[in-house]
Amino acid sequence: MKVRLLVTGGTIDKIYNQSSGELEFDKTHFPEMISRSRVEVDLALEQVLLIDSLDMVDADRDLIIDRCVSCEEEFVLITHGTDTMCDTARLLGETSIDKIIVLFGSMVPYAVNNSDALFNFGCALGSLQLLEPGVYIAMNGRVLPWSNVEKNRSLGVFQAMNS
Amino acid sequence: MKVRLLVTGGTIDKIYNQSSGELEFDKTHFPEMISRSRVEVDLALEQVLLIDSLDMVDADRDLIIDRCVSCEEEFVLITHGTDTMCDTARLLGETSIDKIIVLFGSMVPYAVNNSDALFNFGCALGSLQLLEPGVYIAMNGRVLPWSNVEKNRSLGVFQAMNS
Amino acid sequence: MKVRLLVTGGTIDKIYNQSSGELEFDKTHFPEMISRSRVEVDLALEQVLLIDSLDMVDADRDLIIDRCVSCEEEFVLITHGTDTMCDTARLLGETSIDKIIVLFGSMVPYAVNNSDALFNFGCALGSLQLLEPGVYIAMNGRVLPWSNVEKNRSLGVFQAMNS
Amino acid sequence: MKVRLLVTGGTIDKIYNQSSGELEFDKTHFPEMISRSRVEVDLALEQVLLIDSLDMVDADRDLIIDRCVSCEEEFVLITHGTDTMCDTARLLGETSIDKIIVLFGSMVPYAVNNSDALFNFGCALGSLQLLEPGVYIAMNGRVLPWSNVEKNRSLGVFQAMNS
Repeated sequence: MKVRLLVTGGTIDKIYNQSSGELEFDKTHFPEMISRSRVEVDLALEQVLLIDSLDMVDADRDLIIDRCVSCEEEFVLITHGTDTMCDTARLLGETSIDKIIVLFGSMVPYAVNNSDALFNFGCALGSLQLLEPGVYIAMNGRVLPWSNVEKNRSLGVFQAMNS
Repeated sequence: MKVRLLVTGGTIDKIYNQSSGELEFDKTHFPEMISRSRVEVDLALEQVLLIDSLDMVDADRDLIIDRCVSCEEEFVLITHGTDTMCDTARLLGETSIDKIIVLFGSMVPYAVNNSDALFNFGCALGSLQLLEPGVYIAMNGRVLPWSNVEKNRSLGVFQAMNS
Repeated sequence: MKVRLLVTGGTIDKIYNQSSGELEFDKTHFPEMISRSRVEVDLALEQVLLIDSLDMVDADRDLIIDRCVSCEEEFVLITHGTDTMCDTARLLGETSIDKIIVLFGSMVPYAVNNSDALFNFGCALGSLQLLEPGVYIAMNGRVLPWSNVEKNRSLGVFQAMNS
Repeated sequence: MKVRLLVTGGTIDKIYNQSSGELEFDKTHFPEMISRSRVEVDLALEQVLLIDSLDMVDADRDLIIDRCVSCEEEFVLITHGTDTMCDTARLLGETSIDKIIVLFGSMVPYAVNNSDALFNFGCALGSLQLLEPGVYIAMNGRVLPWSNVEKNRSLGVFQAMNS
């Protein structure tokens, strides 16, 4: 099994910039996270974007779709900001790519205390290997299909729409 | 979906005892780990044991098997020391329990820098929901059935026997 | 020796708010930091403010001065945002309080990876006990008097003015 | 001001060895700790030993004394295991070196959660610059002279003998 890991940015990869006092992007933490997780799966890391998902425009999503379609791997992980993760998942789902695609991110940056980043990465990679072709979101310990997932902003959790 | 999480100890739950200078057990870190991971799955935590898996005797394994069989949940996670995780998995597998059971642990304690604990927890919980009934080990980003998994001690990784 | 620790906020006490995605204040981390540091010095913690030092107005600084003057302890530590730490130090210095007063903060929040918070706290408390009465800033491993300290914003370090 | 930092090992520099499951030495964490602390003091790092202080023999202490005497700096920091830190401090004190020497270590390794390492480093470096020539121990937020310090093993703290 070969997995392509497409990095697009989002909260999971933000770090503190001590000059500005803001959370910004510098480089992805996934090389460190993969090493720390002792991952033995064949994982090809590719940084597609490194942006806040609220700043994502159509061209960015087209790029993500293109990379999903054209990469040689059948299994694809995508890191994504949580604010528009469901939108990108829907676009990918409606594109009908015959691959297994799982999106994930985190509520708290990997570089900040009490982060859920490593857990979500594990949940996404663990489920990826067992799912039928389709597009899914792995957050909060659940794995939900693109057609039935929404972010509940007041609770800060991803849930099935009919829940 | 309801999940029973059986805690038995192992490296994942060890902490540093500043009096003895040794890594020992105090209490399980799973309440903190579950909260941090923002888990929305219905998870019943049960501490069965809190020991090093090298100290596990037959009676301990009987207890683990009994708890798997008698708990009301169909989905069972078991934390376990890595040294004899495959042995306990085999015993559980040969018992033919009609449930989905996933064992996991970590190479580095949750309370120590660079720990794989949270990743493995995510991987175990993510795969648990998608597996057929049986007994599995989730480590190193892979999910392997009890009948075909071994710990490669020189590499410090879990692998399929025929790999 | 009795020490009063006046908390005013600043970067050192900011935490990530997962709803807003911003670094904000919730409560001070000093009870945890003191416990973690195994401090055996008699330390009275008092939260005066919990604000960004760029938002500090005259009334806030008057309050800090008042607490320094009126508290019963001769030794006073003050946590402070780095942006206007030198301003508050100057005001305190010009007030000519016959006490030993050391201000400190951090470039990176205590709750974020790679934080200098605990080091600066140690440096401030260690030097406090040995200084002559006066007002000082302890940052970057140096202890500088209020009359000769400035924040070099491009380097992100505190330095003597004539350096 | 130039500072020599002599590393000898002790709890502060231990890390978890995932093969043995024990806390052992690999390399010192001080390059990382110095960088993280944004130290602007001129600090020359020298690894003299990297051992448990219970394993320290006379020849090891002779080496430490020799390095204190022969290094060109007037200000010397020494990292040391807590179990025999007072013994080495006494030997150094009786040697009557005309320098300012501060020993420190930690109760919990830098690489383990809830470590006091960074705080103690700050406390040692902050006080070093203000002390009269002599030999001191900086632990628990206190700075105590070699002639009046002992480790209270039951409490796990360093204290004045007459306290």
